[in-house]
Amino acid sequence: MTEQITTVSAYAAPAANAPLERTTVPRRAVGEFDVLIDIKYAGICHSDIHQARDGWGEGIFPMVPGHEIAGVVAEVGPGVTKFAVGDRVGVGCMVDSCRECDNCKAGLEQYCVRGNVPTYNGLDHSGEPTYGGYSTHIVVDEAFTVGIPEGISLDVAAPLLCAGITTYSPLKRFHAGPGKKVAVVGLGGLGHMAVKIAHALGAEVTVLSQSLRKKDDGLRLGAEHYYATSDDATFEQLAGSFDMILSTVSAPLPLDKYLGLLRSEGAFVNVGAPEEPVSLNLFSVIGGGKTLAGSMIGGIAETQEMLDFCAEHGLGSEIELIRAEQVNEAYERVLASDVRYRFVIDAATI
Amino acid sequence: MTEQITTVSAYAAPAANAPLERTTVPRRAVGEFDVLIDIKYAGICHSDIHQARDGWGEGIFPMVPGHEIAGVVAEVGPGVTKFAVGDRVGVGCMVDSCRECDNCKAGLEQYCVRGNVPTYNGLDHSGEPTYGGYSTHIVVDEAFTVGIPEGISLDVAAPLLCAGITTYSPLKRFHAGPGKKVAVVGLGGLGHMAVKIAHALGAEVTVLSQSLRKKDDGLRLGAEHYYATSDDATFEQLAGSFDMILSTVSAPLPLDKYLGLLRSEGAFVNVGAPEEPVSLNLFSVIGGGKTLAGSMIGGIAETQEMLDFCAEHGLGSEIELIRAEQVNEAYERVLASDVRYRFVIDAATI
Repeated sequence: MTEQITTVSAYAAPAANAPLERTTVPRRAVGEFDVLIDIKYAGICHSDIHQARDGWGEGIFPMVPGHEIAGVVAEVGPGVTKFAVGDRVGVGCMVDSCRECDNCKAGLEQYCVRGNVPTYNGLDHSGEPTYGGYSTHIVVDEAFTVGIPEGISLDVAAPLLCAGITTYSPLKRFHAGPGKKVAVVGLGGLGHMAVKIAHALGAEVTVLSQSLRKKDDGLRLGAEHYYATSDDATFEQLAGSFDMILSTVSAPLPLDKYLGLLRSEGAFVNVGAPEEPVSLNLFSVIGGGKTLAGSMIGGIAETQEMLDFCAEHGLGSEIELIRAEQVNEAYERVLASDVRYRFVIDAATI
Repeated sequence: MTEQITTVSAYAAPAANAPLERTTVPRRAVGEFDVLIDIKYAGICHSDIHQARDGWGEGIFPMVPGHEIAGVVAEVGPGVTKFAVGDRVGVGCMVDSCRECDNCKAGLEQYCVRGNVPTYNGLDHSGEPTYGGYSTHIVVDEAFTVGIPEGISLDVAAPLLCAGITTYSPLKRFHAGPGKKVAVVGLGGLGHMAVKIAHALGAEVTVLSQSLRKKDDGLRLGAEHYYATSDDATFEQLAGSFDMILSTVSAPLPLDKYLGLLRSEGAFVNVGAPEEPVSLNLFSVIGGGKTLAGSMIGGIAETQEMLDFCAEHGLGSEIELIRAEQVNEAYERVLASDVRYRFVIDAATI
C-alpha cells in the first residue's frame, strides 16, 4: 500500500440524516511517520450520531464516523520508531494537531490552538477529509497512535479511546483517589467508564442517575452508592458530600442544586453538556469556593497513560459487539439509551 | 473591662435603609481567650452597604457594619498566648466558627459547615448579635485575630482584612505567579488590591475595566496592560490569553465571552457576583478544559499569611481617610464608584 492512495471498505453516511451504508473511502499512502492499522473494532460514540445525523451544522459527507479504534499495525513508514508490524494499537478522537503551540507542547493536543485534526468529519493538513473507524483500515501518524497493552482485549479497549480518556483525564486532574468522594452523573457509555476508573483510582464512588433502574450494574462496576436524582431527597441527603462530581450527561441539569452536593473547594466537571445555555447563580460557586469546570478527551501521552492504567487494573468497557450492518439499528438504540454500555462494531464484518 | 459587659461608641444603622448614626453597643467581657482591641481604623466594604441598606433580606438591627478592622490590643484574657497588650492586630469578616468541622480543621473557617460567626449582622455562639468595626473597641477570640506586621500602617492595613484576603486567596490557589498572565476585572476596592497582590506574586497583570478612565492608576498599581471591556475589540485581541481571570465586579458579565479570554485549563474566578442567575454555555468550559470558580474571603491562617506577604512587599490599600460622621456620604460615593479605592474610618472620630 506504500506510496499510493488506496481505497478501503467503510460504513458511511452519504448525507446528513441518511442511514449509514457500506462503501469505500480513500486512505492516504503510508508516509514516513505513518502506521497502517488493520482495524479490528470500532466503538460507537453518541457524538458519532450527532455528527452523522445533523453534522453539528457543518458535517463533511460522505462521513465515516468512529473515533474509538482498536487494531493491529499492518505496515509502518520508514521513520516510525514507536510501533512495529503486529503491535496492538488504538486511535482516538484526533489524528493530528499543529504540534507547535503551547498546548501541543504541553501534551494538550486536544486543545491545539490551531485546532486538532479530528479522526473523522475534519480536514487533514493537506486539506483532505478524514474518515473514521467504521472501516477496515486507517493510516495515522505514529504520534497520534497509542499502544494497547496485552492486558486488554481489543474489543473492550476500543471505547477507551474516547469514553475512557474523556473520564480518566478529569478524574486525574481533579484528584480522584483514596479518601475522595466522587459522584458520577449518568451511567451510560461515559459514565460506566467513569465509575470503573474512579473506583480503580481509589475513590469512593456514587452514581447519580435519573432512576435506580441500573443500580445493580452501577454497584457491580465499582460504585458504593447509587441515588436517583428524580428524588429530591437525594439532594438534601447528599448536600456537601462530594469532592468531585463528573457529569457525563447532555441533558441540562439544575446546576445550583448539583453544586450544593459539593464539599467546599469541590469541583463539578462537565464532559457532557447541552447545546443550549444553562442558568447558574454564581453564589453557588462563591460560597464554598467551588469550581465548575469542563474537560474534553485528553492528550496523547495521557491517553497512553490511561490505557496502561486500565490494563494494570483489568479495566475495559462493557460492550455489545455488533456486525457492521447493524449500525443504523444500534444508533436508534443509543438514542433510546438502550445499550449497556457501548456498541462496538466488529470490523471483520465491514 | 474584664468580667463585665460594657458599652462602647459605634456608628450603627438603627433600621434597614436608615442613615448610620452615633450610638453605643454592648461588648462582652474579655473571656479567657479573648483580646480587647482598641480599634484605630475600619474600612468600608461595599457589602457593608448591602447589609445596612437592605439587610440582604434578614439584617439584624441596630447594625454596626465593619469587617476591615485594624487596631491595638488593649487587654488580653488569661488564656491568650498569641497576643500581648500593645500588639497591632486585625479582624476580618468572621469572629468565630465551629472549629470542629473538616473545613475549620483544614483552615477554611470561612466555609465552616455550621456557618462561621460574621463580624457583624450575625449571632455569636451565645446567641448575642455581633457588632462590627465602626466602633471604638471590639472583643474577639484570639483565634480569629491576626497580627499586623510593623511594615504596614494600620490605616492602609485595615482594608486588607477583607479586600486583601478576598483577592489573595484565589490568586494563590489558582497559581498566580511568575510566567502567568492574570487579568483583573474591575478596578475598585477589591480590584486594586488584586492588581497589587498579583503583581507582587510575579504575575503579568492586565486590568479589564469598563473604560480606560482609571488606566493611569492601574498601571501605577502594578498592571502592565489595561483594556476597556466596552470595546469589543478587546475580546478579539485578548482571546486565549490568560491563565487566570479574577472578577471583582457584581455586574452580570457575559461569561462565555470572558471564558474565551482564558488559555486552555485557565480559571475564571468570581469574588464578586450579581444576585441574579447568569447564563452560561457549558461548551465555554469544555472546549479548553476551563474552570469557572468562586472564592469567598480566606481562612485565618491564610489571612495572616496575606498580611505577612503584604508587609514583605510593602503593600497596603489605597485609601481615603474619613471621619465617622462622613460615613453616610461615603456610602453614597461608594455606590457611585467615586472612591480610589477604599474609604477608611478614623475610629478616633467615633
